[in-house]
Amino acid sequence: MEGEATRIMVGVNESSLKGYPHPSISSRTAFEWTLAKIVRSNAPGFKLLFLHVQVPDEDAFDDMDSIYASPDDFKRINHRDKIRGLHLLEYFVNRCHQIGLNCEAWIKRGDPKEVICSEVKRVHPDMLVLGCRGLGPFQRVFVGTVSEFCAKHADCPVITIKRKANEAPQDPVDD
Amino acid sequence: MEGEATRIMVGVNESSLKGYPHPSISSRTAFEWTLAKIVRSNAPGFKLLFLHVQVPDEDAFDDMDSIYASPDDFKRINHRDKIRGLHLLEYFVNRCHQIGLNCEAWIKRGDPKEVICSEVKRVHPDMLVLGCRGLGPFQRVFVGTVSEFCAKHADCPVITIKRKANEAPQDPVDD
Repeated sequence: MEGEATRIMVGVNESSLKGYPHPSISSRTAFEWTLAKIVRSNAPGFKLLFLHVQVPDEDAFDDMDSIYASPDDFKRINHRDKIRGLHLLEYFVNRCHQIGLNCEAWIKRGDPKEVICSEVKRVHPDMLVLGCRGLGPFQRVFVGTVSEFCAKHADCPVITIKRKANEAPQDPVDD
Repeated sequence: MEGEATRIMVGVNESSLKGYPHPSISSRTAFEWTLAKIVRSNAPGFKLLFLHVQVPDEDAFDDMDSIYASPDDFKRINHRDKIRGLHLLEYFVNRCHQIGLNCEAWIKRGDPKEVICSEVKRVHPDMLVLGCRGLGPFQRVFVGTVSEFCAKHADCPVITIKRKANEAPQDPVDD
């Protein structure tokens, strides 16, 4: 029964509280759940594909005090974002390396829900694992949830892993 | 990393075309996907929990020509349904037995989506795998999908596995 490894795509993002390079609570939860419940001791049977999507607009908002005077300024920002993203991915790749689990990781820019679905189309993983904050219906109206969209529209089976209640920050919109 | 086995609940039902004891295409697809993509060669790491929910009303509809004259008639029907359900479960339990995969299987009566969610609450599986027919939005309006409801309301991670397009019967509502 052991043929090609099962390829699991895991969407990961940075912590909204601690910022880069720290992974969000829900990304970490989804990743650890995948290791504990699916991969288990069978590392050779799996390959993890980490996708981190950076949102260009939000980054610009972080940088409201900066002055953009030339195309080079924008290049510099893009470069800085890329470095930050790589540091985030390093966390996940290192953890896989420790347990001998094959993986790949990459960064894309755009709207996370759209990019994740289009990467699923391109890469054809066997499944997609996404963390989610487990927000109530009221909070969801304002925040929108990437996982809900992808569960509906991604072209592969999707597993959504909720944060544990005791790990949620004071403001549940944070992660 | 290898502690208690990962407990995967799989909702299964009978074929709408061939009837009992044949499993529906989507149940079989969900089950085979679980074996191929998650369990793989690591049978000791997993335990499958098969839940089959029988819908009392639909069964009565099958039997429109029968005459129910006494409480015993109803008992007999319940008994007959139970036997049919057991034959369905036998298929899955046998397959698990062949590959040395631990499992349990049981039957409940009621509204499948409600019963599945309440059994998840009672049994606390690590995840729930459900097959689905992959109906379009127009068909869904009339049919309603158990998987969609459970993905939203079940108290554990849920994976929905679509039938392969080439396995769908002529009428996609069949399964």
